[in-house]
Amino acid sequence: MKPPFVPSGVITLTTDFGHKGPFVATMKGMMLRQFAAAKIIDLTHEIVVHWPAEAAFWLKHAYRFFPEGTVHVAVVDPGVGTERDIIAGLYRGHAFIAPDNGQLAPILGSSSAEAVHRVDLEGLAAFGIHNPSATFHGRDIIAPLAAQLASGARSVRDLGPATREIVPSWVDEPVATASRLSGVVITVDNFGNLFTNIDRPLLRRFKNPVIHAGGHDIPLRRTYADVEPGTYLALLNSFDVLEIARAEQSAARGLGLSRGAPVVVTEG
Amino acid sequence: MKPPFVPSGVITLTTDFGHKGPFVATMKGMMLRQFAAAKIIDLTHEIVVHWPAEAAFWLKHAYRFFPEGTVHVAVVDPGVGTERDIIAGLYRGHAFIAPDNGQLAPILGSSSAEAVHRVDLEGLAAFGIHNPSATFHGRDIIAPLAAQLASGARSVRDLGPATREIVPSWVDEPVATASRLSGVVITVDNFGNLFTNIDRPLLRRFKNPVIHAGGHDIPLRRTYADVEPGTYLALLNSFDVLEIARAEQSAARGLGLSRGAPVVVTEG
Amino acid sequence: MKPPFVPSGVITLTTDFGHKGPFVATMKGMMLRQFAAAKIIDLTHEIVVHWPAEAAFWLKHAYRFFPEGTVHVAVVDPGVGTERDIIAGLYRGHAFIAPDNGQLAPILGSSSAEAVHRVDLEGLAAFGIHNPSATFHGRDIIAPLAAQLASGARSVRDLGPATREIVPSWVDEPVATASRLSGVVITVDNFGNLFTNIDRPLLRRFKNPVIHAGGHDIPLRRTYADVEPGTYLALLNSFDVLEIARAEQSAARGLGLSRGAPVVVTEG
Repeated sequence: MKPPFVPSGVITLTTDFGHKGPFVATMKGMMLRQFAAAKIIDLTHEIVVHWPAEAAFWLKHAYRFFPEGTVHVAVVDPGVGTERDIIAGLYRGHAFIAPDNGQLAPILGSSSAEAVHRVDLEGLAAFGIHNPSATFHGRDIIAPLAAQLASGARSVRDLGPATREIVPSWVDEPVATASRLSGVVITVDNFGNLFTNIDRPLLRRFKNPVIHAGGHDIPLRRTYADVEPGTYLALLNSFDVLEIARAEQSAARGLGLSRGAPVVVTEG
Repeated sequence: MKPPFVPSGVITLTTDFGHKGPFVATMKGMMLRQFAAAKIIDLTHEIVVHWPAEAAFWLKHAYRFFPEGTVHVAVVDPGVGTERDIIAGLYRGHAFIAPDNGQLAPILGSSSAEAVHRVDLEGLAAFGIHNPSATFHGRDIIAPLAAQLASGARSVRDLGPATREIVPSWVDEPVATASRLSGVVITVDNFGNLFTNIDRPLLRRFKNPVIHAGGHDIPLRRTYADVEPGTYLALLNSFDVLEIARAEQSAARGLGLSRGAPVVVTEG
Repeated sequence: MKPPFVPSGVITLTTDFGHKGPFVATMKGMMLRQFAAAKIIDLTHEIVVHWPAEAAFWLKHAYRFFPEGTVHVAVVDPGVGTERDIIAGLYRGHAFIAPDNGQLAPILGSSSAEAVHRVDLEGLAAFGIHNPSATFHGRDIIAPLAAQLASGARSVRDLGPATREIVPSWVDEPVATASRLSGVVITVDNFGNLFTNIDRPLLRRFKNPVIHAGGHDIPLRRTYADVEPGTYLALLNSFDVLEIARAEQSAARGLGLSRGAPVVVTEG
């Protein structure tokens, strides 16, 4: 039987730290101190501050583009220094570690998760972690543990007891009735395209879906070039999620929409 | 005879994706899946959105600071999903791959280009590429091909038929008469310095060039410290292009100039 | 006796270049040309433009989170092209190289510095450096030297004569009297937390310190979650410096404070 996680040496990092100061860098330094051959890739550090739901969304949709055996680290951690837990788990050949605040809910809360463990925060000394700060667990606890997972020195099962009760996502799943699907905008990219929490399987119920957002009725197309410049369109994008765009322009600016805006789909 | 391209394992990435979301990261993930030892360097991800001319400018002037055998990837791709081609080629010991929209014109359109090939988009399965998305060819097509070039698994000649007809640059070359040279500002750096499309060879015709921009007549100096703080100066900078600066301040703000602004040189 | 510097192959980069253009990237390219196995980590490129004091602050507080044997490169260089020197030195098993403008003062100006050398700018040819530009010494001089230090090809002692007279920091040390400590805000992070130049040892003189900033009297706590959302607090943070925060909000915005703002500590 294939083991569920064979480390590739790759680690991805997702945070809301931005690019000022050495916050991300010192996490990488701590990883390299434990595992000099780590290949560390920045997923993004521009998650909306203190909003784990965006990290959850991107991890769920982006993990599969990395080599099997990658360790994905997420640190959007408004509760640092409180009693919140840190969890780690396996899903489809990848490992994940993050504060237990909904960031990993779409992945480790799924029935496909192969293991979910609660890091033993009382027993960190056994992992070589001494005197972590009260305000930067990402650097002092999560980074060294991620490095140990990525090097194969430890497995997620070594980190603490198994669990299935993790904190749910901060964003509800879309609500579906026979004729109508209601979701929300999760994030906006550099081009002003709006990414929703509605994915390909959810859209299958419609023959000719029409997307309602910002007071516009928007047709589903294949790609940006299928409509005239300036025209709104929706598409199932390269991450298999429903995206609302405006050809050669910013849909976010044009529609005045951003994170949390409602998006409804009906039969056309 | 020295072969024209001996891979160093280094890949550079130039995009207009910014730093929000996992767009750049998933390109890197796809590269590591094909070539685990790839050394991936971000050239910049802050190209002006949908403006291939800036990517073209930076690739032309920056490639030579990387090891020979580097693969340079550029993805400013407003036409993704349309009939536009992807091209790859060799130039002075480096490889380049990008959508055929002018990004590679200054390099692969040059008579020094050692090879220019059009990627066979109908035959991607032969490269192990199946079901690319319609909206992210950078990740689904260009990233794996770049990894194959960087690992030496494939050469640019393997990717498709040779071509010499590529899309020209979006910005005209400077216009030169006996006494006058007219160019434009291509980009502005973090300090407010203005980078023009006028380079060292073009300036050789002048004994004592005076630069006219934003209503000012600006002298050519060697470095910022050659003038008093607050004074405008021009210089042939570290990329061998004409730069307009203001000592210890922002020339862009002071002159009110940005991308596309005209710059004229005359004899002083 | 343990040698003072055993290279780990890791290099960190701190600049005020931002993320536009290939400025950081070409420094990395130059490093890889000299030392293909270099592991280059971006510390931050968002130092306030032309303000070496912030780079100095972060280097001093962040270096220890990297592997021993790391080379730390800082290029905040408003004096490029002038007569200013470049210095390199060793401190607690790490190497540092930067323009001599105060960036390395807190580290190499300390009595714990194991070596401080002035780069022989007249003898660069001996290091394989020919015709450096007048405007980008970070790429043309510092990057190749850092790579040579990181590969072990050269030691800081090889770079030029020993020195102890380096340019001091641009920011004064906090002023301490029996009952009062006066410092300043050095930088603000992505969450709006204010980082001061007051560190843990300086605070030891107080039993119950009260922090005065922006017209508020702020208590010292252990972590953000020790107060109600919206409440100001101060803490000795994960870099062992006094930080002023506002639970779940931005202290910088709330107090209207930024770089240079005075911070006073008294007994409560």
